[in-house]
Amino acid sequence: MDKKQPSSIIHGYAAEAQGRPLKLQTFKAPKLGEHDVRISVTHCGVCHTDVSAIDDYYEITKYPFVPGHEIVGYVSEAGSAVSGVKEGDRVGVGWQGRSCMKCEWCLSGEEHLCMDIVKAATWDPYGGFSTSVVADSRFAYHLPKGMRPENAAVLLCAGVTVYSPLRTYVKKGSAQKLGIIGVGGLGHLAIQFAHALGFEVTAISSSPKKKEEALGFGADHFIDSNDRDALRRVEFGLDLLLCTASTLDNWFAVMETLKKRGKFVLVGFPSIDLEPIDIVSHELAIAGSFLGNRVTMKEMLKFAQEHDIKPKIELMPMSQVNKAIKRVKENKARYRVVLENRAQH
Amino acid sequence: MDKKQPSSIIHGYAAEAQGRPLKLQTFKAPKLGEHDVRISVTHCGVCHTDVSAIDDYYEITKYPFVPGHEIVGYVSEAGSAVSGVKEGDRVGVGWQGRSCMKCEWCLSGEEHLCMDIVKAATWDPYGGFSTSVVADSRFAYHLPKGMRPENAAVLLCAGVTVYSPLRTYVKKGSAQKLGIIGVGGLGHLAIQFAHALGFEVTAISSSPKKKEEALGFGADHFIDSNDRDALRRVEFGLDLLLCTASTLDNWFAVMETLKKRGKFVLVGFPSIDLEPIDIVSHELAIAGSFLGNRVTMKEMLKFAQEHDIKPKIELMPMSQVNKAIKRVKENKARYRVVLENRAQH
Repeated sequence: MDKKQPSSIIHGYAAEAQGRPLKLQTFKAPKLGEHDVRISVTHCGVCHTDVSAIDDYYEITKYPFVPGHEIVGYVSEAGSAVSGVKEGDRVGVGWQGRSCMKCEWCLSGEEHLCMDIVKAATWDPYGGFSTSVVADSRFAYHLPKGMRPENAAVLLCAGVTVYSPLRTYVKKGSAQKLGIIGVGGLGHLAIQFAHALGFEVTAISSSPKKKEEALGFGADHFIDSNDRDALRRVEFGLDLLLCTASTLDNWFAVMETLKKRGKFVLVGFPSIDLEPIDIVSHELAIAGSFLGNRVTMKEMLKFAQEHDIKPKIELMPMSQVNKAIKRVKENKARYRVVLENRAQH
Repeated sequence: MDKKQPSSIIHGYAAEAQGRPLKLQTFKAPKLGEHDVRISVTHCGVCHTDVSAIDDYYEITKYPFVPGHEIVGYVSEAGSAVSGVKEGDRVGVGWQGRSCMKCEWCLSGEEHLCMDIVKAATWDPYGGFSTSVVADSRFAYHLPKGMRPENAAVLLCAGVTVYSPLRTYVKKGSAQKLGIIGVGGLGHLAIQFAHALGFEVTAISSSPKKKEEALGFGADHFIDSNDRDALRRVEFGLDLLLCTASTLDNWFAVMETLKKRGKFVLVGFPSIDLEPIDIVSHELAIAGSFLGNRVTMKEMLKFAQEHDIKPKIELMPMSQVNKAIKRVKENKARYRVVLENRAQH
């Protein structure tokens, strides 16, 4: 397929119903809105969110469902009002592919909190496990010069998800002590970003075998989250905990590593089991952080390139999408899988 | 007893063991440190925390235990280094009766987060259900002119507990929408303070019969927390929720009244049952707030007097302490009980 030519059909890997394996299907290509671009997909990362959405965990999935929201490709067609990107440009799009542009959040530059956020996913109508997607050009980002597309794909979702809260809470001129819970797809990027931002980083993981790798990513310390004595040694020691894990068994011991007025920032969805007396008497805060706005996305891409921050990935052809999903589902991916449409490079 | 005379013994109502009724006992009066004052107690409020401490809920109670930490009385003796208050002055002391004065929190004027906070309770060694207490003079506050001592007693704990977070989160020039969960000892004061601070106040209570009274305290709206439809009508409607209740059954529906980036502030200890997806995707924060520092305490007392903010209380002689405790334990007090030592007025 010529990467610059619009196409009237797309070939996408779709789940026909909840939890089903993906099958290659043909869909009518969606029409472009005036601000939209069509993107010939060269690379698409596989995120836990894709796997959960196939299973309709969020109760928003419409079938047939083509997942994929860590997309890099070439602009093959541009709507009448598009500016800033043009046909032939290489661009990336993350989970947020559009936005209402008129709610209080969009108006204040926090488009990731758009009241219409569910429609803002790049899954609407079809995601990036496909030959092409349509997205609002205002959410299509040029990649920094020299950034590999497979790395950019992951940064567009996992990268901004961890960079945004770190950027929010970092204080200039003070070496804050940060714990990163989970050394996985999000966590291994969070360690790199946090190290580059000047935090003193403690990686906290239930897999002690990840210690060396965590230190390699830039962690200053490593704690096995099942080792209560090790946690106790940093009691009241950390300013901030960033939880990238999807499960956390040892809530009380982990929370006790926070200083008074410490912040526990969630970017994943573990079941929460808090002790209200500690929250109150130590004036702790538990805060959620979701993706990031467009300014943060651009800053993150630039920062990653300047500091040589890269996801560790497994690159697979898009035809192996079900194998890739299985690796993600079983937490075997080290640390993210990226699918590529080799014919479209 | 002459209110200005030091005394070598005190008469206090003490629990001899976990959960036991209080009995009048005689104790050797503690010696004064150089910064300490001895206070002849005229009034002492009964707080839920006293009841929990009698039951050793916090696992810090030492028996025999004299509760009481909402104390008003007269200075009867002052240590050698005391300045600012003098013998004969009427003063109040809240939960925090002292502080290490050297940890990072004390040094930064946030003494209520003192690392030695457990020792900072006015229960150490004996609380205010007594003829006299000893406290650090730096935590003894003059009452504003005209403030009744029984009202001041309650403000010194319940008042500062709700005023401090409201003061932290109030934004000048914007009419923030605030929900106050619980119309009880803390809640009925929170409504009054919030109204005076300029919030648009929605009182949320599981007791619909408290509606008229809540509106009388200054609430603009009232919602029965068991009425899911009523909660749904304010979906994404509130900037801030202040939870003064000790139980909350309807977490998900209540949290859905918060705007994105909304804050849920805990001052009580309900069991927490949060939905992590909402926390993350709406970037909500759950934060604890504990008492308040000395600056806030003084400001609160002044603000209460200026805005005619008063607790609604039941005044009882201290000899009826066990009856008072029963009323608090059974949530029958409307809204706080204050004990008085009539002989010491």
